[in-house]
Amino acid sequence: MGVLVLGTVTLDTVETPQNRVEDVLGGSGMYAAVAASFFDDTIRLVSVVGDDFPQNYTDILKQHGVDLEGLRRVENGKSFRWGGRYSKDFNVRDTLFTELNVVLDFHPILPESYKETQYIFLANDPPQLQLDIIEQSTNPKLIVCDTMDFWINEEREALDKTIEKVDILILNDSEARLLTGESNLIKAAHLILNNGPERVIIKKGEHGAISVTDSSFFSAPAYPLTDVADPTGAGDCFAGGFIGYLASVGDTSESTIRKAMIYGTVIASFNIEDFTINRHKTVTSDEIENRYQELKAIANF
Amino acid sequence: MGVLVLGTVTLDTVETPQNRVEDVLGGSGMYAAVAASFFDDTIRLVSVVGDDFPQNYTDILKQHGVDLEGLRRVENGKSFRWGGRYSKDFNVRDTLFTELNVVLDFHPILPESYKETQYIFLANDPPQLQLDIIEQSTNPKLIVCDTMDFWINEEREALDKTIEKVDILILNDSEARLLTGESNLIKAAHLILNNGPERVIIKKGEHGAISVTDSSFFSAPAYPLTDVADPTGAGDCFAGGFIGYLASVGDTSESTIRKAMIYGTVIASFNIEDFTINRHKTVTSDEIENRYQELKAIANF
Repeated sequence: MGVLVLGTVTLDTVETPQNRVEDVLGGSGMYAAVAASFFDDTIRLVSVVGDDFPQNYTDILKQHGVDLEGLRRVENGKSFRWGGRYSKDFNVRDTLFTELNVVLDFHPILPESYKETQYIFLANDPPQLQLDIIEQSTNPKLIVCDTMDFWINEEREALDKTIEKVDILILNDSEARLLTGESNLIKAAHLILNNGPERVIIKKGEHGAISVTDSSFFSAPAYPLTDVADPTGAGDCFAGGFIGYLASVGDTSESTIRKAMIYGTVIASFNIEDFTINRHKTVTSDEIENRYQELKAIANF
Repeated sequence: MGVLVLGTVTLDTVETPQNRVEDVLGGSGMYAAVAASFFDDTIRLVSVVGDDFPQNYTDILKQHGVDLEGLRRVENGKSFRWGGRYSKDFNVRDTLFTELNVVLDFHPILPESYKETQYIFLANDPPQLQLDIIEQSTNPKLIVCDTMDFWINEEREALDKTIEKVDILILNDSEARLLTGESNLIKAAHLILNNGPERVIIKKGEHGAISVTDSSFFSAPAYPLTDVADPTGAGDCFAGGFIGYLASVGDTSESTIRKAMIYGTVIASFNIEDFTINRHKTVTSDEIENRYQELKAIANF
């Protein structure tokens, strides 16, 4: 059915207890688009980079079948750069620097070929850009939106307008608490449901994820990983795998949503095993299906 | 098949953001025994109280069918008293006081009628008492053990000896990390498996519980509760419901263990809805079965 992804494409510097990488391919839109590409052939990315963005990174995205017509390249612009450092055991992530650069003046204009895309994922980005995409989309069937603490704190008004217009809000547990001021996650989810979305999905890292609507509750297990290389982008891969699977099936029923969350969990679990999207280069559909079946066995009683 | 429960029977003072109760019926052994009584008719409690212990509390335990031959009453002794205060939203519990009293000199001697019990739950108690019970049991089929941070820090040697001799160790996530020095819970579980138990069950509160053996992994969802009155005893109810169900079936296969964890989750969820075991007085087998089926639906994909 096709998926439209709005999100950042960045050059990341990541420090983990074991390793350090500099200016690797990153960004919420990049991770989500590549994750979605495992399920649907038509992945349309809307984002912006500077003219310092390496050609071989663009090539990697093309190899994953990502349509880059909506990826603007700004002459004399510098790409978004982000740096982060993980604590021992990956429990805490400190942001070392955030250079928005070309994102500051970005006003996305959807290519004609993108406008009728039915499945839309608004990855973490300024809420005003997310609204721009909603307004330019002519045939949305499902709009899924992610956000983060920065926008909750700094752009609350615009964020509330975005949330009002989306079908599914995906966020992590601390963001759900921050957004609502409610520490009980189930109560927090219902407070969010009152403001527009028909479904809230809360990501809980090593504890899996939950999906809440007015009439349903689903608890998805986490994939039990013992060797973590780099958690960066795991949440974006979860969301990207999720919407990619939904688009490939062309259905948003409760049972398809649940399967999509498990496929999202699977892609996120692979992502964590290496830096940037290195692990995605070798992931096979058999490996994806095996982890899906493993998760089915893990949750079965 | 019958369950033997070792654990404390206490007088608790509990402060929550909404309420305060004083000298109510509490204790790890009490909660576990009552929880187990929902599944098995023969629940044998080993514990100690002082002569200040109210007769009507003993009557409540009898009404739940708990065999009290192993409950020693010490003349001129004072019962174990514990006081705790929960923070807003129940995220933090401060211990206000712990008066061990009669527990300090307690050396449990199993009544003859208890010795052949096949299902044994060693609730939170000094590890030396747990060892005493193991040594006096003549026909154990399954020994399940709980512990807490205090014993991990203060009685590590005795605790290690106990852990070596039990089949299943149940503990919460922070205790698993404290015991092993490993923050990844799956790695922590495998470190514990190396020291004796064939299965480790880690309780994660609102995130459910996991069960780990050398060859299996199970993730049990939490029951989605929005109205919490008092979490005291929830972990003991989980364990008590768990072993009570196992004993009632007389089987310790992987599939029965998983069902038992869900039944333990159900009893714990009721326990949280009121102080002490007030909620247990009215819980029906239909209510238990309904929540079990709800959890099945919640985990289904």
